[in-house]
Amino acid sequence: MGKKVTIRDIAKESGVSTTTVSRLLNHVEGYCSKDTEQRVWAAIERLNYHPSKIARSLVTQKTNLIGVIFPDIYNSFFQDLFRGVEEYASRLGYQLILCNTDGNSKKERDYLLSLAENLTDGIIISTSNAKDDNTTIVDLHKKGFPIVTVERYGKELKDVPRILFANREAEEQVVDYLYRSGHRRIAYISGPSNAVNANRRQEGFRNGLSKNGLLVDDSLILTGDYKLESGQECMRRLLDEHGCGDRKKPDFTAVMAGNDLMAIGAVRAILERGLQIPDDISVIGCDGTMLADLIRPQIGTIRLGGIEMGKKAAEYLISEIKSEDTGEKKVIFQPQLHLDGRIKTIEE
Amino acid sequence: MGKKVTIRDIAKESGVSTTTVSRLLNHVEGYCSKDTEQRVWAAIERLNYHPSKIARSLVTQKTNLIGVIFPDIYNSFFQDLFRGVEEYASRLGYQLILCNTDGNSKKERDYLLSLAENLTDGIIISTSNAKDDNTTIVDLHKKGFPIVTVERYGKELKDVPRILFANREAEEQVVDYLYRSGHRRIAYISGPSNAVNANRRQEGFRNGLSKNGLLVDDSLILTGDYKLESGQECMRRLLDEHGCGDRKKPDFTAVMAGNDLMAIGAVRAILERGLQIPDDISVIGCDGTMLADLIRPQIGTIRLGGIEMGKKAAEYLISEIKSEDTGEKKVIFQPQLHLDGRIKTIEE
Repeated sequence: MGKKVTIRDIAKESGVSTTTVSRLLNHVEGYCSKDTEQRVWAAIERLNYHPSKIARSLVTQKTNLIGVIFPDIYNSFFQDLFRGVEEYASRLGYQLILCNTDGNSKKERDYLLSLAENLTDGIIISTSNAKDDNTTIVDLHKKGFPIVTVERYGKELKDVPRILFANREAEEQVVDYLYRSGHRRIAYISGPSNAVNANRRQEGFRNGLSKNGLLVDDSLILTGDYKLESGQECMRRLLDEHGCGDRKKPDFTAVMAGNDLMAIGAVRAILERGLQIPDDISVIGCDGTMLADLIRPQIGTIRLGGIEMGKKAAEYLISEIKSEDTGEKKVIFQPQLHLDGRIKTIEE
Repeated sequence: MGKKVTIRDIAKESGVSTTTVSRLLNHVEGYCSKDTEQRVWAAIERLNYHPSKIARSLVTQKTNLIGVIFPDIYNSFFQDLFRGVEEYASRLGYQLILCNTDGNSKKERDYLLSLAENLTDGIIISTSNAKDDNTTIVDLHKKGFPIVTVERYGKELKDVPRILFANREAEEQVVDYLYRSGHRRIAYISGPSNAVNANRRQEGFRNGLSKNGLLVDDSLILTGDYKLESGQECMRRLLDEHGCGDRKKPDFTAVMAGNDLMAIGAVRAILERGLQIPDDISVIGCDGTMLADLIRPQIGTIRLGGIEMGKKAAEYLISEIKSEDTGEKKVIFQPQLHLDGRIKTIEE
């Protein structure tokens, strides 16, 4: 390959500064004489120069790129979120670049800084699925860099545009639903204790019990790590410790899990023991993944509305980029329960 | 927010050209006097300037960013591919940016050009899941821009580094396996006819039949669109047209589908009719998705090795970026069959 022609080559060839070339390429007018202008365009043609997006963005300061940062490309909530951002932003001429952090704080910080350093016009960042470090986000926001967070928590984020999900309310509503369906003893498999949303979901479960006058029995609450195997393992323990009567039916009638994958693990453990779903135990996950709809027996789940959250995040971000609306930007998405026909009704 | 301090402000403040500032920031030595150097550093400090990655890359021409372009973030093959690229490239200090094309040729072209215009050091691009247009790829490659393709076909790509999957051999091997297990009549649900890999898979199926001396019966070959519903619909038609005897058992004993999602659709249609898997019909998908392992009854599948393909793609690309190895770069990944215990053995 021949050496790539740069803006400096044009400047040298036409005897002007790189700034002049850059301004011309970006159609900033009245900066040099018509003569000079013609000389530069001639050099551009002679050297067969194609202006790079980077050189252009030095002047326009816009790239029309939006960055999306999330921890796990395998997680369908983040896939939906990305999808929603894309649907909204691509109609407005933005291109998206996506970065995957693996829940690693250093990677997250590095991507934030890379994307913010003029690569993108703004960033949408979701939770890291563990303890979030918000320092860099708050820094960038204070410097005026457009940024929107999704499902991240922390008082320090109060001025940053935010999209949240009502995690507590979601699990509370599931307990309400189970209570109305006649369930009185409900087990819970929680996500990892370092994940804020896992803790909020568990809180919601506990609140739901109390609200309905049910006993909070800690022996029915176990902690997994959001992975399938942990759900299976926790369910085995619950069945070991609470099995009784014929076919070792347990002394609870429903189990809720902090996400769908753990719920599917629970399904496996229940079927291993020859028990029926939902006849012996109703199973409810969270996240509304395709898996929850595909597996048989079907499990109950809670849809978060990732696509809608993504669209809203894009709307907030683009408004920040264009400095259109400087009001507070915060919205909490409400859960959509998918329980009908997936939960056993217990006659009293 | 205060206006962002740029390289031009520093140049103005210290009375030198932007090029001089840029060279200093990039530690290009011997370009100006020590005096000038000190003046520039003082201005940088005074104005509290943080050099942007873009300004830096104007000189170094390296961004340490690798672009990955694929059509569908929901498809687990592409998730695996991305994962593999990331595992390999992040160890070597590269950051990844991912773009989703939706199989839209215009989006694909726009992303290619955006990423190639100095945003990234190189690009890994996978198939668009439909008829691929390779013009821009060949163009970029000819200009010397590092690019690697994954599962893209076309004579025009012969000089471009390529990672391929043995689609034909995969389906041929499944037919061999089914034949050895006693199956003699096998149905096939193909992916869409505009997708090169769908056609290759169907070819492999047909070759497999012929090779084993089995009749190719076109009434047993239907075409879906890689989505679950199309698999269910095709399977219903197969059962309608080929059902016979008690419980309407069909006159074939196995069905292969061009991907796992369509195979899962087929499972639904089979269960709807009260038939058993694999006792009445063995079901085999392709792609080795998590779904194929999670659903019950379990289906057979073929693992493509997306993670390994991603690692190899990253290895090729980084070698291109560093101009280390200029030899031909092409590798064809072989299928890994996951059929044991998922296929009925028919005694003769």
